[in-house]
Amino acid sequence: MSENKRSVKVTFEPEGKTVSDSSRTLLELAQIANTGLRGDCGGTGVCGKCRIQIVKLYGEISAPTEKERDHLKPEEIAAGYRLACQAKMISGKCTVHIPPASRTAKREISAMGLEEDVLLGPAVRKIHITPERPSFEDTRPDLERVIDCINPDENIEVNLDVPLSVLSKLPATLRHSGWDVTAALWDDKLVSVEPGETSGECFGVAVDIGSSKIICHLVNLATGDTIARANGENPQIMYGEDVVSRITYASKGEGNLKKLQSLVAGTINSLIEEACSESGKSPENIYEMVFVGNSVMHHLVLGIIPKYIGVAPFVPAVTDLVSFPAKDIGININPEGMVTAIPLIGGFIGADAVANLLISGIYETKDTCMLIDIGTNSEILLGNSEKILACSAPSGPSFEGAHISSGMKAVSGAIESVKIVDGKLLYSTIDDAKPRGICGSGIIDLVSELYTSGIITRTGKFRNLDHPRIVIDGVPRFIVAGKEESGIDYDISITEKDINEFLLAKGSLKAGWKILTKEYRIDPSEIDRIYLAGSFGTHVDIDNAIILDILPDIDREKIVFAGETAVGGAKIALKSLEKRNQLKNILEKVRYVELSVEDSFQKDYLASIPISGSET
Amino acid sequence: MSENKRSVKVTFEPEGKTVSDSSRTLLELAQIANTGLRGDCGGTGVCGKCRIQIVKLYGEISAPTEKERDHLKPEEIAAGYRLACQAKMISGKCTVHIPPASRTAKREISAMGLEEDVLLGPAVRKIHITPERPSFEDTRPDLERVIDCINPDENIEVNLDVPLSVLSKLPATLRHSGWDVTAALWDDKLVSVEPGETSGECFGVAVDIGSSKIICHLVNLATGDTIARANGENPQIMYGEDVVSRITYASKGEGNLKKLQSLVAGTINSLIEEACSESGKSPENIYEMVFVGNSVMHHLVLGIIPKYIGVAPFVPAVTDLVSFPAKDIGININPEGMVTAIPLIGGFIGADAVANLLISGIYETKDTCMLIDIGTNSEILLGNSEKILACSAPSGPSFEGAHISSGMKAVSGAIESVKIVDGKLLYSTIDDAKPRGICGSGIIDLVSELYTSGIITRTGKFRNLDHPRIVIDGVPRFIVAGKEESGIDYDISITEKDINEFLLAKGSLKAGWKILTKEYRIDPSEIDRIYLAGSFGTHVDIDNAIILDILPDIDREKIVFAGETAVGGAKIALKSLEKRNQLKNILEKVRYVELSVEDSFQKDYLASIPISGSET
Repeated sequence: MSENKRSVKVTFEPEGKTVSDSSRTLLELAQIANTGLRGDCGGTGVCGKCRIQIVKLYGEISAPTEKERDHLKPEEIAAGYRLACQAKMISGKCTVHIPPASRTAKREISAMGLEEDVLLGPAVRKIHITPERPSFEDTRPDLERVIDCINPDENIEVNLDVPLSVLSKLPATLRHSGWDVTAALWDDKLVSVEPGETSGECFGVAVDIGSSKIICHLVNLATGDTIARANGENPQIMYGEDVVSRITYASKGEGNLKKLQSLVAGTINSLIEEACSESGKSPENIYEMVFVGNSVMHHLVLGIIPKYIGVAPFVPAVTDLVSFPAKDIGININPEGMVTAIPLIGGFIGADAVANLLISGIYETKDTCMLIDIGTNSEILLGNSEKILACSAPSGPSFEGAHISSGMKAVSGAIESVKIVDGKLLYSTIDDAKPRGICGSGIIDLVSELYTSGIITRTGKFRNLDHPRIVIDGVPRFIVAGKEESGIDYDISITEKDINEFLLAKGSLKAGWKILTKEYRIDPSEIDRIYLAGSFGTHVDIDNAIILDILPDIDREKIVFAGETAVGGAKIALKSLEKRNQLKNILEKVRYVELSVEDSFQKDYLASIPISGSET
Repeated sequence: MSENKRSVKVTFEPEGKTVSDSSRTLLELAQIANTGLRGDCGGTGVCGKCRIQIVKLYGEISAPTEKERDHLKPEEIAAGYRLACQAKMISGKCTVHIPPASRTAKREISAMGLEEDVLLGPAVRKIHITPERPSFEDTRPDLERVIDCINPDENIEVNLDVPLSVLSKLPATLRHSGWDVTAALWDDKLVSVEPGETSGECFGVAVDIGSSKIICHLVNLATGDTIARANGENPQIMYGEDVVSRITYASKGEGNLKKLQSLVAGTINSLIEEACSESGKSPENIYEMVFVGNSVMHHLVLGIIPKYIGVAPFVPAVTDLVSFPAKDIGININPEGMVTAIPLIGGFIGADAVANLLISGIYETKDTCMLIDIGTNSEILLGNSEKILACSAPSGPSFEGAHISSGMKAVSGAIESVKIVDGKLLYSTIDDAKPRGICGSGIIDLVSELYTSGIITRTGKFRNLDHPRIVIDGVPRFIVAGKEESGIDYDISITEKDINEFLLAKGSLKAGWKILTKEYRIDPSEIDRIYLAGSFGTHVDIDNAIILDILPDIDREKIVFAGETAVGGAKIALKSLEKRNQLKNILEKVRYVELSVEDSFQKDYLASIPISGSET
């Protein structure tokens, strides 16, 4: 039995990829699982780039080597950090987390499709002032001198909110700068008084906090320009890939909630640092962070227990736009800088949907538009300036390459498109690199082509196991790229289980838009425009997406690739106080449809799983 | 030479009393210095009550004994804590701080003289609410449910400031309490949402932060009653007895400023705890602290560098009424409770003077009134509803018994009044205890009686060293109570240096009220009323005070003992938002007179030092 050789089992997070194999180094196993773990020096223990963390261990693993002790501090080793090329799994099983820094290069995220030219009017403003020096004739206190400069009109009663940390530094700052300072204000809060003229150094960050991915844009609030971008994985994935398991984890105790909060805050801080160092700016000069995220992410970032979003009637703690001092949630921008959460619609439909609304302008057009933002939870909006329906479909992470045996993120070496022409399989990879796995757009193409070529049935079963590309090694699998042509030592393939995983995801999505159109009493063909949002959307083959019912079957020219709409919407709110304040009115037009309580959902969902065409 | 025996020198703080003697235990030396250090078990090391801290050491001291190790933790010993009965000074000199807890019982502070019945309308209010439970028909978020209950009128737009710490606990609090909670509000801030009906548990504290003494009153904000009082020493005394030396210390570095801030915050916290435990209340249910203090105390409590109050043109960082979260300055009340600082007038005339104004009602009467609040810095106000002048006289700590060889605080055993009748000296002590020293009111009597009996000259020199009560032991001193009758092993006496210290203090005070009357163009005899404020004032013999020019010579019935006006004024602001908000207008009537820049001050001051009567 070949099973005897497979003495160890390792699961790599956040992808959730599991390999069972004979005892090997974790780097070799990670390469088998195609996780994108770095091994720059070829696994010789020289470069130290393959740092990973053992998060669970039920078995035996080799002791840390001298090379590991060279690269890792004792406290890191104590926390389970290892060099994957050195650590060898001897028996049993373990779960390994691969930190973002230990991964191969990320694919550049496409620019915004729809980012409109909002009139710049942010909550943050900076004013260069030169208060008068005190004298025996003019003994006004320091703060009054500053406020009189900020608001020279005596007739306007100003009620500035001055934090103690700003006030306590004021006397020294004024005198050391020679009474030449710049005041930074956020709304009516005096966030900072800095020596000299710094009004050009005025930044904000917009952050889209997805269940899987966090995207951060650094914006110059003096010009409105986006000056740097950074993105990374949401590290909460270690504690559950979907929001429901994170709710469960967070609800188990105050400590768990704090852990999830500080994990996401830590990643946001790294991304802010990355964006700042790329553009040569200082986080001290960032005065506001505006973020979007689904309701659960929204609560977890703010440290609010999301438990009751997860149980009927799915009520959040707060849905309105709220702002708090950034330090309250551990975000490292200016010490008195603020964090603003874009409002939620309700239940599982969050601020990301609101950001999508803001950027697509659905709320101000007469045309009936649909917006689909595909992610682990996919948000769907349908409507126009009259009324808007919104829902959230729990589509899972397979569109991002997770939970698929050869799946991977859309990074270098991912097969991003597949064609089967005259029985011959063709593919292209990101960066034209040797293939290492299949990303979301590649999976859509693959499943669609397998179906239209008659290789799989509507329910995703192989029709004929004698197909030359199907090998049976335990379970039957369809070889996309054999190990002789792949950039790894293994075949890149797809199993019936993988296809099923994908069909469940697309079924959820289809049931979502189907129920919305029913509720709206509109036939999908009557929709004037469909916005396909998210970086994923921009790489999808539209025909294949329609074959698989990811999108309704409408004229191709009605489909707009909207790009990263969530972070774009956050940027609009960051740049325009006016737009931000309109949100309350816009949201009054939106009705949230909770799919799980719709009578027809279960039926629609089950009906949406198989591919809808006829059996070819 | 007897000097040979005097091998050690110990200074006890905060009194600043120094003893030079042969090598002895610190308890014995403390008893010689009459510091009021506890020695409940008679110095046997059993009770552990004589804990003191060595703050400076230039010499040799005995190693900690086993008994000390029983009573003190290793980290306390490392921080210089010792049991005074065990620690023996062997050679050299040291400075010892006696913490409040190691002192004998305090004299009860007299009740307020003038505390008026303000209409209760505090910034803090609590409302018992029972928000509706969510349902699929009503999916309002938690916060909205609470706000709708607090402000049931839909037409009023409410803009509550909700701290994240309150919001993050809200979902659990609402559900665990069965949707039966009490909201605590401070102005428009939602400070707390507590399970059950707790609207009766609604407290505030008023604190008078003097340079030497801190007084804390706990007030029931549901009834307006003062339910507990506590007072203690200002521990900053270790770093300077007068505000000028504290400014100097605080200006030497960020760390010094932080140390002074945390010392005073720590004492306030102890007093709040003491008042709470006395009345069986919880600091969690205190939602606001209102404090008064001179400008330097005001800045030090808030952690603002007071450096520029100390240099011309003496400009504070802020003078307006300001409120901050209590946690920002380390005050342990409700986690989101607020601290409000009563406004300052300017320079060295602080919030205590404003509190005096508030309680005396000078600002709303046609009568011309003077208010004198004697302390290390004595505030003097003069005026009526038309205009008010204010000044601060640096009178030093001798009115509180410090810097006087036999001086002591007004606690049990202090000689509080002295009469010389037909050459015979009579005195009374607090609690009728055996005399242990002389407190401020006793010193006033003593100097006045010595002068009127012809024993000292106008400049405080002994006329005749042959007087039976004068002994010459190094320097001549006048025996008030010989060691055979005193409660200590030493004579209680006064030297020419002591008398001079006192005359300098009263000279500063006299110069202060003299300059104010000159500026106001009023003869002191035309003043309608003089308020004598502070607990010290209530024990003074008015005739003697007038003989020594501490007060102007006016009809005795025009003099009002006002009691603890500063904490009383703070209580008015705590209990009435309306009065608090009036302060801005009241203060517009006040003109601050900076004594040090008045041309005549130096002349007036020098002229005010000798006793003003003729040589008897």
